Amino acid sequence: MQIAPKSRIVFIGDSITDCGRSRPIGEAAGLGNGYVALFDACWRVRYPVHGLRVLNFGVSGDTIRDVSKRWGDAIDSQAETVALMIGINDVWRQFDRPDRPELGVPLDEYTQTLDRLTRDLGVRKRATVLLTPFFIEPNRSEPMRAMMDRYGDVVKGIAGHYGVACLDTQQVFDRLLVSMHPYELADDRVHPRTTGHMALALALLDALHP
Amino acid sequence: MQIAPKSRIVFIGDSITDCGRSRPIGEAAGLGNGYVALFDACWRVRYPVHGLRVLNFGVSGDTIRDVSKRWGDAIDSQAETVALMIGINDVWRQFDRPDRPELGVPLDEYTQTLDRLTRDLGVRKRATVLLTPFFIEPNRSEPMRAMMDRYGDVVKGIAGHYGVACLDTQQVFDRLLVSMHPYELADDRVHPRTTGHMALALALLDALHP
Amino acid sequence: MQIAPKSRIVFIGDSITDCGRSRPIGEAAGLGNGYVALFDACWRVRYPVHGLRVLNFGVSGDTIRDVSKRWGDAIDSQAETVALMIGINDVWRQFDRPDRPELGVPLDEYTQTLDRLTRDLGVRKRATVLLTPFFIEPNRSEPMRAMMDRYGDVVKGIAGHYGVACLDTQQVFDRLLVSMHPYELADDRVHPRTTGHMALALALLDALHP
Amino acid sequence: MQIAPKSRIVFIGDSITDCGRSRPIGEAAGLGNGYVALFDACWRVRYPVHGLRVLNFGVSGDTIRDVSKRWGDAIDSQAETVALMIGINDVWRQFDRPDRPELGVPLDEYTQTLDRLTRDLGVRKRATVLLTPFFIEPNRSEPMRAMMDRYGDVVKGIAGHYGVACLDTQQVFDRLLVSMHPYELADDRVHPRTTGHMALALALLDALHP
Amino acid sequence: MQIAPKSRIVFIGDSITDCGRSRPIGEAAGLGNGYVALFDACWRVRYPVHGLRVLNFGVSGDTIRDVSKRWGDAIDSQAETVALMIGINDVWRQFDRPDRPELGVPLDEYTQTLDRLTRDLGVRKRATVLLTPFFIEPNRSEPMRAMMDRYGDVVKGIAGHYGVACLDTQQVFDRLLVSMHPYELADDRVHPRTTGHMALALALLDALHP
Amino acid sequence: MQIAPKSRIVFIGDSITDCGRSRPIGEAAGLGNGYVALFDACWRVRYPVHGLRVLNFGVSGDTIRDVSKRWGDAIDSQAETVALMIGINDVWRQFDRPDRPELGVPLDEYTQTLDRLTRDLGVRKRATVLLTPFFIEPNRSEPMRAMMDRYGDVVKGIAGHYGVACLDTQQVFDRLLVSMHPYELADDRVHPRTTGHMALALALLDALHP
Amino acid sequence: MQIAPKSRIVFIGDSITDCGRSRPIGEAAGLGNGYVALFDACWRVRYPVHGLRVLNFGVSGDTIRDVSKRWGDAIDSQAETVALMIGINDVWRQFDRPDRPELGVPLDEYTQTLDRLTRDLGVRKRATVLLTPFFIEPNRSEPMRAMMDRYGDVVKGIAGHYGVACLDTQQVFDRLLVSMHPYELADDRVHPRTTGHMALALALLDALHP
Amino acid sequence: MQIAPKSRIVFIGDSITDCGRSRPIGEAAGLGNGYVALFDACWRVRYPVHGLRVLNFGVSGDTIRDVSKRWGDAIDSQAETVALMIGINDVWRQFDRPDRPELGVPLDEYTQTLDRLTRDLGVRKRATVLLTPFFIEPNRSEPMRAMMDRYGDVVKGIAGHYGVACLDTQQVFDRLLVSMHPYELADDRVHPRTTGHMALALALLDALHP
Repeated sequence: MQIAPKSRIVFIGDSITDCGRSRPIGEAAGLGNGYVALFDACWRVRYPVHGLRVLNFGVSGDTIRDVSKRWGDAIDSQAETVALMIGINDVWRQFDRPDRPELGVPLDEYTQTLDRLTRDLGVRKRATVLLTPFFIEPNRSEPMRAMMDRYGDVVKGIAGHYGVACLDTQQVFDRLLVSMHPYELADDRVHPRTTGHMALALALLDALHP
Repeated sequence: MQIAPKSRIVFIGDSITDCGRSRPIGEAAGLGNGYVALFDACWRVRYPVHGLRVLNFGVSGDTIRDVSKRWGDAIDSQAETVALMIGINDVWRQFDRPDRPELGVPLDEYTQTLDRLTRDLGVRKRATVLLTPFFIEPNRSEPMRAMMDRYGDVVKGIAGHYGVACLDTQQVFDRLLVSMHPYELADDRVHPRTTGHMALALALLDALHP
Repeated sequence: MQIAPKSRIVFIGDSITDCGRSRPIGEAAGLGNGYVALFDACWRVRYPVHGLRVLNFGVSGDTIRDVSKRWGDAIDSQAETVALMIGINDVWRQFDRPDRPELGVPLDEYTQTLDRLTRDLGVRKRATVLLTPFFIEPNRSEPMRAMMDRYGDVVKGIAGHYGVACLDTQQVFDRLLVSMHPYELADDRVHPRTTGHMALALALLDALHP
Repeated sequence: MQIAPKSRIVFIGDSITDCGRSRPIGEAAGLGNGYVALFDACWRVRYPVHGLRVLNFGVSGDTIRDVSKRWGDAIDSQAETVALMIGINDVWRQFDRPDRPELGVPLDEYTQTLDRLTRDLGVRKRATVLLTPFFIEPNRSEPMRAMMDRYGDVVKGIAGHYGVACLDTQQVFDRLLVSMHPYELADDRVHPRTTGHMALALALLDALHP
Repeated sequence: MQIAPKSRIVFIGDSITDCGRSRPIGEAAGLGNGYVALFDACWRVRYPVHGLRVLNFGVSGDTIRDVSKRWGDAIDSQAETVALMIGINDVWRQFDRPDRPELGVPLDEYTQTLDRLTRDLGVRKRATVLLTPFFIEPNRSEPMRAMMDRYGDVVKGIAGHYGVACLDTQQVFDRLLVSMHPYELADDRVHPRTTGHMALALALLDALHP
Repeated sequence: MQIAPKSRIVFIGDSITDCGRSRPIGEAAGLGNGYVALFDACWRVRYPVHGLRVLNFGVSGDTIRDVSKRWGDAIDSQAETVALMIGINDVWRQFDRPDRPELGVPLDEYTQTLDRLTRDLGVRKRATVLLTPFFIEPNRSEPMRAMMDRYGDVVKGIAGHYGVACLDTQQVFDRLLVSMHPYELADDRVHPRTTGHMALALALLDALHP
Repeated sequence: MQIAPKSRIVFIGDSITDCGRSRPIGEAAGLGNGYVALFDACWRVRYPVHGLRVLNFGVSGDTIRDVSKRWGDAIDSQAETVALMIGINDVWRQFDRPDRPELGVPLDEYTQTLDRLTRDLGVRKRATVLLTPFFIEPNRSEPMRAMMDRYGDVVKGIAGHYGVACLDTQQVFDRLLVSMHPYELADDRVHPRTTGHMALALALLDALHP
Repeated sequence: MQIAPKSRIVFIGDSITDCGRSRPIGEAAGLGNGYVALFDACWRVRYPVHGLRVLNFGVSGDTIRDVSKRWGDAIDSQAETVALMIGINDVWRQFDRPDRPELGVPLDEYTQTLDRLTRDLGVRKRATVLLTPFFIEPNRSEPMRAMMDRYGDVVKGIAGHYGVACLDTQQVFDRLLVSMHPYELADDRVHPRTTGHMALALALLDALHP
């Protein structure tokens, strides 16, 4: 996927994206300390004259329902490219808070919302890259991994339908999980340490180019 | 297992036991907020005239190797009964820090040390209850669960050999995991929220009596 | 008293109930560290598949007059079962702040308000359990204990009149006070340490069942 | 009891005396915020040219056993007059920590130690005023009040035996308890608010004169 | 000046009165640590059955202009007796901030405002005691002392005119300054240490009686 | 330069290396947030089965004189490979603290010390990579840049003499400075933001391989 | 430039002026710790009877665009003399944040705004002193220094056009840079340590007189 | 008094000198925020090529007795010039702590100690400047001012006797007190705000030259 010189890219997502970014929108020193900041640094090192401007609009704890509510603010950032990674909390809440079913987002609502948001980006002529959600668990029959894979399939399906770019972040982690136990990457199998964020950043660097 | 009136019981262990206890030895308001404090409260409610004195000597991060080093201090507490739950970090470090093999404790060292400590308690005429380590993971073929089970078997074997009491804490959690996903009990599958500590306390209350 | 599966129970009360709960309503990790959190943990251990959802709506310092003012918020929580323990501050303020008589709540106002609130719960078809207030003082002729007992009698009378469940928390503490001096349970004879909260939680566990 | 101009008086005691004094010895702005500071201020207002120098050597939590251990430091302050109020913790620990009998001080040890310390002050030609311990509880048959009265009797007896001054602080509080409930004076019946400290200071002002 | 049983007295003033009181109105444990709290304690010790209720409405930095602006709130406290000590900042700002003449309050404005406030208290049938401002400086020809004395004369004049009680606080300090250097009482000659506050409290205790 | 599987590499240096690492030696989550941590993450992503263990032994403010003093501790880490980047402070102190000439390290002392340390590593059979110091200033005739280049030449010369690896970090920054002003990379031209650290990490990743 | 006795001077500027001043306007002890406070102190020492009142209205990060927005508040301070030093951030943002061109202020906008503000001061009959922006870099061909010089020329031109006073702060620093390296004066070549602020204060003292 | 290029000057004194300096010896950014730092900045601005190195060795609360005890450390600083301003606390303690006569230093001890220290500096060939103590009180018959003047006379006498430089700091303040009330310069008449420190710094600048 090609990124125009001196254009903007906004990253929308949950705590994986947020990572302590500045408010209202993270930029430059306010990108936080996750994959967004690492991608920004890698890109500047590799393409020092390109002039890409990276914005971080992640919010810890967000589901796609929350992203949908603040969609207007995301659009207002006027970024030519939108990168969206959402869905981990949509699934996680169904497992760690089963007593509060209103906190998770069921698959059909997730599908419809993502479809609507992606279509909206097309209408607005924004370049789009969808990142699947992931779960740092190698066992594909584990219930939460199985459900996360279904949400990831939805992301890939919608990306294909609208012809936008897609990054399979689960695959990025699965490659590492061949030789690493989940605890090497994250205490809670969700929030990666620097290695996991670097893996995401380098995968993005492969997927995007000037 | 019978506990004599007005006697002392000392709990030795890792962060599951520690839970913010006071130093040098936790007692009364200094028992922390884990299973030791909950057991103490339950016992006082059930047996208000018994007069058991509960001591907490847990240290976050400890393996059996660390417990062995501070064994003298534990003995000096002069408790008539010793409860020992150790081994989680012995196993965990082998999975989350494979690059530092010196941090974990291999099964044979674990076995020999636990055997030596248990024998020492017998020599000193201290009543003893060994608690197995546990892992909040229902899948018995998951590598860390499988290894934890082997360490738990060692505990049960040594308890049987010396004829001391034993509490299978893995069984306590397995009973809950039938209907709960691990995330309901603990974010990192190791440090339980109050429900898990209460399960341990109530199991201890069943295992001990005046 | 029977609690329906997957239903909600809201605890309304004063600082004994509050214990550092989250705002606006305490739930899950936000239940505080008092009897409500301990009851929640005990219930989950004993009935792991029942799915009761526990809410904490205690406010430190509240009298029944304050509870009456925030009654609408309590009702809005939509809990099928309401547990109400109020009255300690209504009495206490008459003894520690005699210069500010407006702070306490006299017996007749207490009676009328509790009657009205209980009737309202009946009209709304909410299952109800009234908990008496308590004072950790064994001498029944001590003036504040004598008054607290009169308030407790009102609670029991109203519970009987409307046929709702009632837990005599004074009795729970009186049982412990047979062998313990008040200072073992609480420095100020009002705010119990963990033993007192556990006594309340276990008494509730006896009073409620799936 | 007469106090010489430009002489020193040292107050030795527990938390009632300590009240946040400076270390190693409280003086001037470091007298804390209890009866010692209030007495100092009252004395300066009443006798502005007298030049008494007030020292505070109270330590929170102390029993007479602790006072005995730091007796040398107290003597080293070279105060011509010594005021000693100790015994509350000696009794209290027997009621709030019955599981740790080593924390309280039994009556005979209290008696022997106080006798020895008082005799020592006589040998050293230090003017002495003994203050009884107190308990803010009007019911003389309450167990802790009854025991505190016995300790107070010991203080009065020893003062009489050695012919030194004595201030009955229990009587100071009993006079207030005629019309005040204990909660007006102290939440825990031991640590008074300003009114109680002022009562002690004014009683001292009556007992001592230039 | 006689104070009715179970009536209220409100103290209005500047930082000397404020001394860290609670907001919105200081009462009981919220009286701060200045002369108001000491007077309250002395009164309770001397007249334990009288039931006076003491309110603190001092605000650090206030001049009479500020007091006039918050007069409505003071009146709303419904205290039967009003004690007013104001004027120190009115004078002080003319000496430490000569570049900002708008901060001080000139004598004529001070006079007119105090006259108006005192008359208003008479109309409202509030018992009134006016306290003069003071300056802890023995040299009456020192410029700020000379000016403070003129403001104090205004207070005494208005008190005489309306026949209300008056306490000459400058006299209270002058008595101490006979034998003490100003530094013994206050580093900045304005904010007294405990001795000065106690002198004010005891003078008030002499001036008021049940 | 080839790195053996499951071997250790220790980074020794100044604040550029330190970046908030843990004490006594940074490892895993304690690598800080500079180029060492980024290199570690990149390496793990690229070579997940290699098992390199990265140690951070940087100390903010160090010159080669300080490194020489703690050389024993560095050696004791038993790392098979040593990466050394030192010299920035040796030069900087000569410019920002000219009044304290003892703080900087002159070129001849720098040369002799680096020669000695490098030889020592050879004797001990440690693989070695020397990193030149750098200055984020594009103007080579600027006095501090000119001096830094001379120190860098010494590093390259010694590396050549002993046949060890060398990374020219000045070149890494010079490549970025072609299109970036120094302020884009660092406020003080010395401590880079993430982009500069990433440039160092990626250059190291190119220089080292399994 | 002559300053009238007992008049006011307001300093408007960016972080160099701000230096931790009080809000809403810094005065007296609230002047911060930069050149404004030092000038105030020097002036008072040299002209102790003059009575100049110094106000600080600097805001860290401000460009002339920000100053223009808060111009009304600056005018409302009613200072007879206005000292304005602005422009450093207008230039700096073009070098450290080239990706956000909206943050800097181009030369023409700077020129027009400064012209308008200066004219406005003339209309309002405020005495005016314009201070050029500066950059602590001796190399006049360095790109940011070159640009800063052009902004400084604009300031000097406008001051000449309207016949108001002008202080060339760049010259003040250039004089020091003859013998000092920029690092002696400031880590980031913008925010001077005390020496630089003192140089500004003394230059102002030369430029202004009673 | 002439100061050699690239030599050192150490300032020894009390809190006026200390002003938050770094430990063990303040230098550069660690000079604190008093007259020492201001003198350092003024000197650098006026004589940028001179290279004087300024050390701050003031200790809050010190009397000449304390200075004498740490004399060895002061000498070890190897400064070619020693500036000593001590005596304020020697006098002050006699007025604010008359109950602790051991805290002040009587005139004869002050005289003998200062004589001994000054002679020692002569023996060691250190250039010396003695600064008198001061008191920000214009009334020369005020008791503390009168005593401070006597101590100042001692300083001037010893300076004359040994032929070393002397700065009359009392005169510096007296000049300001002609038109300023003490409160404009210091709340407590001892610790000046910036104006007073600047007056000292400028007076030093007049007294010393390259």
